[in-house]
Amino acid sequence: MSARQYRVAGKRLSRIDGIGKVTGKHVYAADFALPGMLFGKILRSSEAHARIRRLDVAPALAMAGVRCVLTAGDVPQIRFGTAIKDRTLFADGVVRFRGEAIAAVAATSLEIAEAAVRAIEIEYEPLPAVFDPEAALLPGAPLVHAGWSDYQALPVLDREGNVSGRAALGDGDVEAGFAQSWRVYEHRFTTQHVHPGYTEPRAAVASWDGNGDVSVWCNTQLPFDMKNMLAEVLDLPASKVRVVVPGIGGGFGGKLRVGVEHHAAWLARRSRRPVKLITTSEEELTDAYPRQPTVVTLKTGVSRDGLLLARQGRVVLDCGAYANSGPATAAIALQVLAGPYRTPHLAFESLAVYTNKGSTGSFRAPAGPMANFAVESQIDLIAADLGIDPLELRLRNVYREGDKGPAGETLTSVSIEECLRKAADAIGWRERTPAAGRGQLRGKGIACSWWLTTGGSSGVYVKINPDGTVTVVSGAVELGTGAMTGAAQILAEELGVDLSDINATDIDTHVSPYDYGAQGSRTAFSVGNACIAAARDLRRQIGELLAPVWNVPAASIRLEGRGVASGDKRMSLAEAAALSQRSGGGLISHGTAIQPMPVFDPTRVKHHPLPAWTSHSFHAHAVDLAVDAVTGEVSIGRYVVAQDVGFAINPTYIEGQIEGGVAQGIGQTLSEEIVYQDGRVLNANLTDYKMPTMMDVPRIESILIEKPSVNGPYGAKGVGEPPCIEPPAAIANAIAAACGVRVQSLPITAEKIALRLAEKTA
Amino acid sequence: MSARQYRVAGKRLSRIDGIGKVTGKHVYAADFALPGMLFGKILRSSEAHARIRRLDVAPALAMAGVRCVLTAGDVPQIRFGTAIKDRTLFADGVVRFRGEAIAAVAATSLEIAEAAVRAIEIEYEPLPAVFDPEAALLPGAPLVHAGWSDYQALPVLDREGNVSGRAALGDGDVEAGFAQSWRVYEHRFTTQHVHPGYTEPRAAVASWDGNGDVSVWCNTQLPFDMKNMLAEVLDLPASKVRVVVPGIGGGFGGKLRVGVEHHAAWLARRSRRPVKLITTSEEELTDAYPRQPTVVTLKTGVSRDGLLLARQGRVVLDCGAYANSGPATAAIALQVLAGPYRTPHLAFESLAVYTNKGSTGSFRAPAGPMANFAVESQIDLIAADLGIDPLELRLRNVYREGDKGPAGETLTSVSIEECLRKAADAIGWRERTPAAGRGQLRGKGIACSWWLTTGGSSGVYVKINPDGTVTVVSGAVELGTGAMTGAAQILAEELGVDLSDINATDIDTHVSPYDYGAQGSRTAFSVGNACIAAARDLRRQIGELLAPVWNVPAASIRLEGRGVASGDKRMSLAEAAALSQRSGGGLISHGTAIQPMPVFDPTRVKHHPLPAWTSHSFHAHAVDLAVDAVTGEVSIGRYVVAQDVGFAINPTYIEGQIEGGVAQGIGQTLSEEIVYQDGRVLNANLTDYKMPTMMDVPRIESILIEKPSVNGPYGAKGVGEPPCIEPPAAIANAIAAACGVRVQSLPITAEKIALRLAEKTA
Repeated sequence: MSARQYRVAGKRLSRIDGIGKVTGKHVYAADFALPGMLFGKILRSSEAHARIRRLDVAPALAMAGVRCVLTAGDVPQIRFGTAIKDRTLFADGVVRFRGEAIAAVAATSLEIAEAAVRAIEIEYEPLPAVFDPEAALLPGAPLVHAGWSDYQALPVLDREGNVSGRAALGDGDVEAGFAQSWRVYEHRFTTQHVHPGYTEPRAAVASWDGNGDVSVWCNTQLPFDMKNMLAEVLDLPASKVRVVVPGIGGGFGGKLRVGVEHHAAWLARRSRRPVKLITTSEEELTDAYPRQPTVVTLKTGVSRDGLLLARQGRVVLDCGAYANSGPATAAIALQVLAGPYRTPHLAFESLAVYTNKGSTGSFRAPAGPMANFAVESQIDLIAADLGIDPLELRLRNVYREGDKGPAGETLTSVSIEECLRKAADAIGWRERTPAAGRGQLRGKGIACSWWLTTGGSSGVYVKINPDGTVTVVSGAVELGTGAMTGAAQILAEELGVDLSDINATDIDTHVSPYDYGAQGSRTAFSVGNACIAAARDLRRQIGELLAPVWNVPAASIRLEGRGVASGDKRMSLAEAAALSQRSGGGLISHGTAIQPMPVFDPTRVKHHPLPAWTSHSFHAHAVDLAVDAVTGEVSIGRYVVAQDVGFAINPTYIEGQIEGGVAQGIGQTLSEEIVYQDGRVLNANLTDYKMPTMMDVPRIESILIEKPSVNGPYGAKGVGEPPCIEPPAAIANAIAAACGVRVQSLPITAEKIALRLAEKTA
Repeated sequence: MSARQYRVAGKRLSRIDGIGKVTGKHVYAADFALPGMLFGKILRSSEAHARIRRLDVAPALAMAGVRCVLTAGDVPQIRFGTAIKDRTLFADGVVRFRGEAIAAVAATSLEIAEAAVRAIEIEYEPLPAVFDPEAALLPGAPLVHAGWSDYQALPVLDREGNVSGRAALGDGDVEAGFAQSWRVYEHRFTTQHVHPGYTEPRAAVASWDGNGDVSVWCNTQLPFDMKNMLAEVLDLPASKVRVVVPGIGGGFGGKLRVGVEHHAAWLARRSRRPVKLITTSEEELTDAYPRQPTVVTLKTGVSRDGLLLARQGRVVLDCGAYANSGPATAAIALQVLAGPYRTPHLAFESLAVYTNKGSTGSFRAPAGPMANFAVESQIDLIAADLGIDPLELRLRNVYREGDKGPAGETLTSVSIEECLRKAADAIGWRERTPAAGRGQLRGKGIACSWWLTTGGSSGVYVKINPDGTVTVVSGAVELGTGAMTGAAQILAEELGVDLSDINATDIDTHVSPYDYGAQGSRTAFSVGNACIAAARDLRRQIGELLAPVWNVPAASIRLEGRGVASGDKRMSLAEAAALSQRSGGGLISHGTAIQPMPVFDPTRVKHHPLPAWTSHSFHAHAVDLAVDAVTGEVSIGRYVVAQDVGFAINPTYIEGQIEGGVAQGIGQTLSEEIVYQDGRVLNANLTDYKMPTMMDVPRIESILIEKPSVNGPYGAKGVGEPPCIEPPAAIANAIAAACGVRVQSLPITAEKIALRLAEKTA
């Protein structure tokens, strides 16, 4: 299955949504406007945990231009949430974090709405709060949700106290394993809150029609989930809610869940006018869906020659005041912890824990960087202790084709050894601490991991137009990854047309077929498969249309060169579509795809709320960097990613995914952190929240490995999430190699390194 | 096939688009707005035929708020048109009718745009003009299009001089037929310009995006034709043009062709801003697509007992300055002239003729009322002369099952006798001139006809949502007829759900599958068939989904009661859809339908440009009215329509179609006329153009006959157009019965009757 056999798939073609985006003409949700719309603004809590004693919106309502003010008393107290229905539209008498929505205003201008929010009078009665997830586990800790046992929740969840979900993954007998071990190591790692950093804030415009139906233009990654969630909080049948995504300026998992859509919809319903809501940077950094902070403890027993015999671990994940994706993310951490290493005895548990901080989410490869930072830092620590080269130690332990995975699944298309060897070769692994510039310390690090592509259904409608172009209507959102270009390349390949012949329409839940959403590295994978199914049906239709006209067997008819041919007979696809419109109803079709899901072995996996994943991928990162011997500043010289993508549908956009993911990983590793103090975010602005800029990101070298998957289109595997998993471990390992400083808490700031370097020289 | 066997089809259910429309919340194209849009206005010719000597737009361009002024010199001279590409965006140096577009302005307000249009300076050089279609046929008549031989046109057309299309229909030997006849009658009938009278003016908002694609929100009946036409005048591939119909406030054939969309699109392209254009009543009455005036001459030979032996006729149809639908309408007239009567010898010809008046269109049942007025007035004249009851004369001659039709087709599902008898019974035919009130003369009239349903492809996408609702995406426009409710009833019937479970989306040519358009009484008919095909595929998918789950044969699985069942196993449709989303890709499907077209016998039919019709229908109208013996004012007491609808998908909306059609027919018969004098419309406003109001329309009694068609869904036949065919003849016949005045020119105003009554008493 080499790219060379294809005309369109596998080629470095420009994206179908490119021109509109680079020229600034593309309408993103944040740009969207309706005539006569009002502007909304949210009043947010200034307390981390408190009872609302008094709330007086009269001063706001009295202001000219204010059309509507809503509080918890004005809307039904419907609880919603992903794993646990623990949240309400507005704080239900108690605020649980600083930044929680208390009221919403719609006014004729944003300035008036902001002034109205400031005019609302509010008094709080403080309640005891808990901010540290480990403290939240202690007996007697303040409960973030008192009396929450009657909240609806996924039945699979094991929850009590401040634990919103406890999951476990185990195999063998870990105590026996430790007993057999030559050495046993225990380490503790911590990670921080990181914002997804999408360039477009969350935005929504809601408008109601005369049938009592609501349309919401927004930038969600999961339009069908959003539709269902809005139906829930609006107390409507789902079919009366229409979600349209005109365009989305990045998501990275931060736009999976409701942002401002529910407030916009309620304000529009009550004001009887369209309402627009858009978040500020401050709101993004206090009430969005960042990556969860974690505390990971790992205990590992090894044989004398470095074989992993037993591993025990615990992940405590701080999911903030509302559970959202926390229980699922914590459970995914178990799988990341387990791989990509053979280990006969495993015992991992994870806890998603409520604290009085902002809610968290499913940032790209949820749990991936946190768990991998622990696993791969520890592998280097063990290697150093055993005196084995870290690459060699990995190669002795990694999964091989046909191995059993941690959940009992059989692993196929395993390429982790190839990834490690190619990344190591490319970085020049033999020389791990080469000469550095003056005042610098240079070192190389490596880390590897595996990841799972999310399953779920995708459907497409496809029509061939009488000008020979092809339109695909999908329920999947193009996040900016190029995934829909990838799916379109597959469709073009199947129909014998050019990529420029394919048009994809905006997603509109009323019209578009269902799609499980732009998450879990699944879009090109799953929509691509649906396109193959739709194309197959179109080939059948064209065969039935032309076989009697040409008097040839339908099976002899092929699609090629934007046309249809059989023997010496030939017709352009445009002519065939026009002929079908005149005589056959038009060339339209549908295609659906879903990946078969692996079955968890229930003796190994307990209380896992998210079994919807399918094929896996493998990858290794290697980095060559220098540390300033005084300031601790890290300069990355080279960064190499060897990733198994199964089949590179469009190498350029896959490389773009890798470069973007590594950049995010570098941010998480070296500089980014939402800094909380007593429940208050100290850096709720983009000056003090340190995302890397272009100047901070080195050239990233991608090595695409193509070991075909069983399920993906042309063997493709999901590629979007993995690139941000390994950077923390790879960079931490390189820093340790460079200067001997092992930092086990993210971010690895220059300050942390400098202090440790100063200790060493002191 | 009785309605009683169905749950949903055949029932008087409320329309799916009803609430939004009756509450005024539905967004019609004329309501549609985009933020920052400009307003357009057209400068129109004040001359009927003239060369433009000087055109100076500088004063308009200099006005504050004017963003763009376009004339013929600013855009490519692309000729467009339906049958003949004879028209340009702006007059090509010569204006051919008063009201023709010469320039267009886009400005920040409508007031500025209007002022700018007034500021444009223009000088004309008059050219000889021709206004009368018969005069236009004379040698030496001024040519409306000089040197038009190089215009592109349908190859089938026979055209020269001012004749844009000459068609013929013949059989047997008409001269021999006249020779055999006992009596031969010759009469001449004339009809007038009539506006379709849609309540919403033509409107469009055009907006270009960064990819050079244009979206046009408008109220066209034929979105896919509009897309192709706009692509032509914008010199773009069709796939770069998107036409959306948010809603349309009536069309009646008057919104088949481009109205303001092309001007809006060009103004938006050049001004780089969205532009809205909307017509005024004056523009509607000077440059729209009214029904063509005609001159019909009929010569008929009959046997002693009233059997029709030979008929010869000629239709001269005044299509105005641009051909548009004229050649097709003239050709359709031949078929209406021929039916619904057996006649061994036929010779009809029709001519569509250019004059220096506004263009004309395809108003509901194009050619129907004009041709039927002649045929059915003459039948009454013959009956009177022969002393045979007019009903009896008709019954002796009407088509019978299995007859050959005039084009050589075999007639099936023939119900004309039943229609005539039921209408006559209902009106109390035995007493044709009952007692009248004081000063009034009372009489009854009858008329019958046949009509053809237009064919063409329809496609739908259908999905079953996990809340059990069903969404249908169709390319067909809901004009307000209820046709899409009819199609939805069929879909609901097929899927075992309720009508309220069906949602239909707005039509958007980028997304929607192709549809031949809302014309020719075809929507419920053809979309209904496409829905049946889509439902069949969904039943297959559901069978494949549940057969292995339930371990039953797929064929045993039925859809009923919003659920799926086999034996004692049962699941709601919502659950099945949710199951498919989780495990099977989602329940989505497509369906297409096209009607087989009858083949014209080429020895009978010549130069007919519109062979795209399929099954036929039959109907008879009867009226009981009174004429004021002095003023000639006509008061309709009762009006009965017996129409064969094949199967009444929703009797309420079919009755609505009949009532509306008769109201339009009454307007054409008694009061409506766009009055031209030397090329100028004297009554270009809705005060002087006399459409009937509710007060002018009697209660209309509908008798729905259900003789199933071969092709239609559940046997349905097209129903939309026929009701406006017979009113002129039925009312003329009743007036003659009442007061002995036979008026052979429409409209039959009170003035015409009064003058004739005065003559009689003089």
